[in-house]
Amino acid sequence: MTMTTTQIRLAQRPKGMPEKTDFNWKEEQLKQLDSGEVLLKTLYVSVDPYMRGRMSDSKSYVEPYKVGEVIKGSVIAEVAETNSLDLQVGDIVIGNLGWQTYLVASENELRKIDPNQAPITTQLGVLGMPGITAYFGLLDIGKPVEGETVVVSGAAGAVGTVVGQIAKIAGAKVVGIAGSDEKLTYLKNELNFDEVVNYKSEDFKDQLKQACNDGVDVYYDNVGGEVSDAVLRLINKGARIPVCGQIALYNLEKPDLGPRMQSQLLINSALMKGFIVSDYGAHFEEAIKDLAKWLQDGKLSYRETIIEGFDKIPDAFLGLFKGENIGKYMVKVASQSE
Amino acid sequence: MTMTTTQIRLAQRPKGMPEKTDFNWKEEQLKQLDSGEVLLKTLYVSVDPYMRGRMSDSKSYVEPYKVGEVIKGSVIAEVAETNSLDLQVGDIVIGNLGWQTYLVASENELRKIDPNQAPITTQLGVLGMPGITAYFGLLDIGKPVEGETVVVSGAAGAVGTVVGQIAKIAGAKVVGIAGSDEKLTYLKNELNFDEVVNYKSEDFKDQLKQACNDGVDVYYDNVGGEVSDAVLRLINKGARIPVCGQIALYNLEKPDLGPRMQSQLLINSALMKGFIVSDYGAHFEEAIKDLAKWLQDGKLSYRETIIEGFDKIPDAFLGLFKGENIGKYMVKVASQSE
Repeated sequence: MTMTTTQIRLAQRPKGMPEKTDFNWKEEQLKQLDSGEVLLKTLYVSVDPYMRGRMSDSKSYVEPYKVGEVIKGSVIAEVAETNSLDLQVGDIVIGNLGWQTYLVASENELRKIDPNQAPITTQLGVLGMPGITAYFGLLDIGKPVEGETVVVSGAAGAVGTVVGQIAKIAGAKVVGIAGSDEKLTYLKNELNFDEVVNYKSEDFKDQLKQACNDGVDVYYDNVGGEVSDAVLRLINKGARIPVCGQIALYNLEKPDLGPRMQSQLLINSALMKGFIVSDYGAHFEEAIKDLAKWLQDGKLSYRETIIEGFDKIPDAFLGLFKGENIGKYMVKVASQSE
Repeated sequence: MTMTTTQIRLAQRPKGMPEKTDFNWKEEQLKQLDSGEVLLKTLYVSVDPYMRGRMSDSKSYVEPYKVGEVIKGSVIAEVAETNSLDLQVGDIVIGNLGWQTYLVASENELRKIDPNQAPITTQLGVLGMPGITAYFGLLDIGKPVEGETVVVSGAAGAVGTVVGQIAKIAGAKVVGIAGSDEKLTYLKNELNFDEVVNYKSEDFKDQLKQACNDGVDVYYDNVGGEVSDAVLRLINKGARIPVCGQIALYNLEKPDLGPRMQSQLLINSALMKGFIVSDYGAHFEEAIKDLAKWLQDGKLSYRETIIEGFDKIPDAFLGLFKGENIGKYMVKVASQSE
């Protein structure tokens, strides 16, 4: 039997904000299964801000995609046929896989998910890369202490929602920055953030200052740009600033100019550190164990923004930069088999 | 006996680059010695870049001077009269003291210097605050490893000269940035820096890139501004950036705008940390012990720029910002008694 799959490829490198014309669709025949390989039916495709960096050819923390290549990212899939001793038909797996409806993958690039432990989509969010990113950036770099003030930007995103909740578990006062009333309400009412501020408000800086009336001890930075400038003006002596993302900048075409912040770090003996989750590759199990425990104990809750349809993947990806999502943004491509 | 002393006070807060009119001279009668107090004859007055910050009323890492107040800084003096059981006439002491020819001080604010261990002026430089600052910034934050590339700006100054030499002791390749041929020659020929670059060169960025052909693992930042922008473009994965000073900015009247560097930190998982030597107050002895040992073993050498005359103190202070000094800059006010 020959199988046809639909792929989404990088048509050209986006200039500034990506557009749908930067992607193209292609039909391909799938190859026969070699030993150790499986045929996968794609269930969920994750869209993540870091993927924008890979679409440019400038240096980033991961290899750029090649033009003409299938876009790759985190994907949850179901085994439809198997030539592997480890994986059975019906097994649910996760891997760094192409945006395509069906695919052939080696058992070595897949990790099996236990669907009874938690909903499988949590592997893309709270129990996956975003959750682990939140965990290490906050606890290893931010090191919040009871009673300190932790500010998180991009607070309603897949990473930010977990950062704020872990900071609460650590006993910190948590201030979330996001861009819509709906997000602020969610953070305040469902995740129990102490203070929330809309960066689109005209008096954002004043609101932020008021929310951080004891200054800022930890700033978990997901966004960069002017939002971060405003937070950095409020840091306390000994502040720690994990730099996790700079989503405000990913689509800039000009150099990102602003106040240099070395003086702020200097007069406050403050620390700023960039990181990527793979820096902590050797310690993932530790994070996953804690996150799963908190989830089970009801100390960690999550929301997902899921849209349906393989052809909607680029829309979801573009939506990240428009702030469309609360919590983890993903695309449902197919349902699990009964 | 009543004694008269001459003081230098802050006449007004400098706007931009300080001028001599920002200081004024005043004659004062010294008070009688209380119990535990001594009369001091000032020998050497230290001028240091951080003092510029104290002349403004904006937040800095130390309290601002008050307008009309005597300027205070590191001073080496000789005990001329004593009402202290611990200090004898002729003893040499160091303290954070006023810019004045004679002064009355309490034994509690003084530390006795052993003039037989090393020349007393080293207490203002290589064995004093600048040496200790170099030591902790480089070893605690920079953590250079054998074979790595360490870049230091303000390389010919009191701190920079020590940073480069400790980095050599650690087995690193050392690249020094300074502003005159005389300084570069000194760094290269006498301190054995591997590479030296003049930031005033037209092709500074190209020269720097060539000097750092394996990238930059540690950047010890004394200057800030465009020099630092250029170094930060060259950092390697896992780079460490101790921020010790920002002398290029201390006299700026406008906000310091430039490329925001969070993205550089992010894609390189790099760490930037501001600090002040007092952060390490509990560990000074450890630094002094190592520095004295290296000095004795000939692994650490130093140079001093000394001008004579109490009335030259403001000139020396202003000279810091013109790059006049190689090594520690100080003013000799009087000779030690025979």
